[in-house]
Amino acid sequence: MSSNNAVEAVGDFGLIGLAVMGQNLILNAADHGFKVVAFNRTVSKVDRFLGDEAKGKSIVGAHSIREFVQKLKKPRRMMLLVMAGKPVDDFIELLLNEGGVEKDDIIIDGGNSHYPDTNRRTKYLAGKGIRFVGCGVSGGEEGARYGPSIMPGGNEEAWPYIKDVLQSISAKSDGEACCQWVGDDGAGHYVKMVHNGIEYGDMQLISEAYDIMKRGVGMSDKEIGDTFTKWNKGVLDSFLIEITRDIMYFNDDDGTPLLEKIMDSAGQKGTGKWTAINALDLGMPVTLIGEAVFARCLSSLKAERIRASGKLDGPSPKFEGDKEQFLANLEQALYASKIISYAQGFMLIQNAAKEYSWKLNKPEIALMWRGGCIIRSVFLKDITKAYRSNPDLENLLFDDFFNKAIHTAQPGWRDVVSKGALWGIPTPAFSTALSFYDGYRTKDLPANLLQAQRDYFGAHTFRIKPEYASEKYPEGKDIHVNWTGRGGNISASTYTA
Amino acid sequence: MSSNNAVEAVGDFGLIGLAVMGQNLILNAADHGFKVVAFNRTVSKVDRFLGDEAKGKSIVGAHSIREFVQKLKKPRRMMLLVMAGKPVDDFIELLLNEGGVEKDDIIIDGGNSHYPDTNRRTKYLAGKGIRFVGCGVSGGEEGARYGPSIMPGGNEEAWPYIKDVLQSISAKSDGEACCQWVGDDGAGHYVKMVHNGIEYGDMQLISEAYDIMKRGVGMSDKEIGDTFTKWNKGVLDSFLIEITRDIMYFNDDDGTPLLEKIMDSAGQKGTGKWTAINALDLGMPVTLIGEAVFARCLSSLKAERIRASGKLDGPSPKFEGDKEQFLANLEQALYASKIISYAQGFMLIQNAAKEYSWKLNKPEIALMWRGGCIIRSVFLKDITKAYRSNPDLENLLFDDFFNKAIHTAQPGWRDVVSKGALWGIPTPAFSTALSFYDGYRTKDLPANLLQAQRDYFGAHTFRIKPEYASEKYPEGKDIHVNWTGRGGNISASTYTA
Repeated sequence: MSSNNAVEAVGDFGLIGLAVMGQNLILNAADHGFKVVAFNRTVSKVDRFLGDEAKGKSIVGAHSIREFVQKLKKPRRMMLLVMAGKPVDDFIELLLNEGGVEKDDIIIDGGNSHYPDTNRRTKYLAGKGIRFVGCGVSGGEEGARYGPSIMPGGNEEAWPYIKDVLQSISAKSDGEACCQWVGDDGAGHYVKMVHNGIEYGDMQLISEAYDIMKRGVGMSDKEIGDTFTKWNKGVLDSFLIEITRDIMYFNDDDGTPLLEKIMDSAGQKGTGKWTAINALDLGMPVTLIGEAVFARCLSSLKAERIRASGKLDGPSPKFEGDKEQFLANLEQALYASKIISYAQGFMLIQNAAKEYSWKLNKPEIALMWRGGCIIRSVFLKDITKAYRSNPDLENLLFDDFFNKAIHTAQPGWRDVVSKGALWGIPTPAFSTALSFYDGYRTKDLPANLLQAQRDYFGAHTFRIKPEYASEKYPEGKDIHVNWTGRGGNISASTYTA
Repeated sequence: MSSNNAVEAVGDFGLIGLAVMGQNLILNAADHGFKVVAFNRTVSKVDRFLGDEAKGKSIVGAHSIREFVQKLKKPRRMMLLVMAGKPVDDFIELLLNEGGVEKDDIIIDGGNSHYPDTNRRTKYLAGKGIRFVGCGVSGGEEGARYGPSIMPGGNEEAWPYIKDVLQSISAKSDGEACCQWVGDDGAGHYVKMVHNGIEYGDMQLISEAYDIMKRGVGMSDKEIGDTFTKWNKGVLDSFLIEITRDIMYFNDDDGTPLLEKIMDSAGQKGTGKWTAINALDLGMPVTLIGEAVFARCLSSLKAERIRASGKLDGPSPKFEGDKEQFLANLEQALYASKIISYAQGFMLIQNAAKEYSWKLNKPEIALMWRGGCIIRSVFLKDITKAYRSNPDLENLLFDDFFNKAIHTAQPGWRDVVSKGALWGIPTPAFSTALSFYDGYRTKDLPANLLQAQRDYFGAHTFRIKPEYASEKYPEGKDIHVNWTGRGGNISASTYTA
């Protein structure tokens, strides 16, 4: 110990922010043999935690940011679990200015930060010799306590120093840690964002299946629960199907399903929206997440929908036919749509890797999502397998397993989408998935007409299909045609409204 | 005249930027009796223009920004028609610093600027006493020459001074100018952006109808052209249907339709994307524009689609039944989807008005789109009528005319969407429109399940439907339930992947 009251550096890992996620991650790390230093802005919370949940564990507290930093062994490993946005920047400044972090120390942001912020912070701190890591953490309260999915990215120099602690506390799937290095800059938070977008999609698909069963087939919540029970033993086996089953069976005190009393109005302000906006920015057709976000928007217009329900009619669905067969079709519709959603998600990730120069590793991403997080499923094992057997796989739909799966699912899927349209039950996610499948597998889409229209009214030019290239219309050249045949006028329509 | 070589202020209206749009707007204004001052950064272009198209008209040139400004009567009315982005800012600075514009002068940006830029510029220039107007102009080259749709917004103090010139040069519809004051700040460019988004939607819908006729029904381009000819005499009567008809009939030198040789790969980097992103940001379900943008994204993956077409199968459509009846259904599907798209567009505008505190006038916006622009149509007359008879109309679908129209169209619409799904022909825009309709008119959507799931795995809480409120579950309160029945654990699922 030095003379100026310096405290002893005993800690292996430091964590700032003692809300639910932070406390649970600390307990998790302590259980795995790490000596953890805990700090919180409201310092009284530190003492309460030390005297309660943390009692008897290898956890020490700090009462100032300076003490927090001093109590950590070098290079210091410090995680922030505070609200995304300004609080993260504030704590970084605090660590720099009052905490006295030094060159080679490591700051990990474990919150739900937007990836451009993580890009910025990684660069900013690298300029000061500090290694910054932006880390997506999924799994809720229980995941944090017993093993979440962890998606770290940022300054790769940090990885050898944090790998042990992060992989120890993370979920495991078939013995593999659901925590791998994702990539540079904001890549970890980016992958977490896409994970959340996919979560939006999965939840919307399950909701559409529930609606079809309830209003289309006329089933009770109990019967629907039985169906989810069955599905949870097959290809759809997953955390979200499991909890949906529980929800269907959950009755209020009066013996009726609580679900039917819950307000049908969902929020959307976060990561799902970010994913859809990023897809638009990168020009990738991630239609299923887009529709899932918009479905939440529509749900939130509850008062307007009630008024609309009195003014706008539709057909009254009357289910006829073989119910078991139809439910099998519905299972296939959900499965096929889910395959499309993940295929789109990985298309986005693949494109982001190119656009942002990240070396994103698709099999490892699938592995990270297999356990601990909300979208964990058997399905992600198959995706991991697909990308492991062929890391350069252009599209998930080209993998033999998924190719076969979607072909098998197709007839049932088409039946459900067409019935939804005829019955008047909205299936925005099922439908957009099918439209995507049919568009994606179409060599010649009607976008030739778009291009002709744009050239007609705005002289925007078009290209010729190579198989029709000629001297007059050479391949790869921007071509403009005088559509009206009247002089050099490019847009001589006589139309008047 | 002052002694220091001051030039005489003869001009009523000044225009900077002598590209196609700029030249045509100048000629248009001169035809309407205004003395126009023309300037271009590359000054040689001014002389070329004066000696050519502008010859003998009430047009004078300027060879410096200073001369340009001095040649205008006060308060000066100056329009920029330069590329959106930095060039607009550069010219504003040039006008301020070298041009010598003065308090109360008016600068109009007639380019395709993004509305947040217009917000910023309006505020910045107001601080200097200069009135700035951001002005959407639609109609292409010919529109600019003989009457475009003009959507001005920004500093309203400017409107009395620019109304005469803008309304003179704008399109007219039933004698009314397709140019009205839109609102504060970037409201004009905002409405132009939504216009362009709707244009994306209209084009996508027409493309889907073409695809259904071509691949679903097996019609030739000539037959399809005959169908568009017929449709152009009915409820779909519009500029875009008219030019589509022309395109269908347009043969290459070898006597086959040129359309079929055009590359089916469309770009999307501009206003359509901005509209979809804005819809996500405002939380409004503008699904049809979203799908239209994504459809362009998918079209642009041409090489990948060719590979996918060899790996992914689907049904082979075989049309059977009454062709005339099906084409009537298709017309109704297109009409109904278009009604949904405009209803969504106006929902967005209505919400933006609230969000940005703009007094957006819906009947006037519909009027502006009736003539001059790409989406001009008979349909917009009906929208104008709907909003004029009830300016507080909550939703276009609640108007008697459109309410009746969509109910009449419904059976045909459902038939087309269900057939598209069964035939394997993508109908992303038709389908999303129908899902929106069915979701919007549904009092109880399955979003109650989303809320239950979110509370189950993340303790995000939910609300109770008022009709089920009780002492235990009071109305308007955030409620959390212990779904698993195991202790206080919020997410105790045993699911492991």
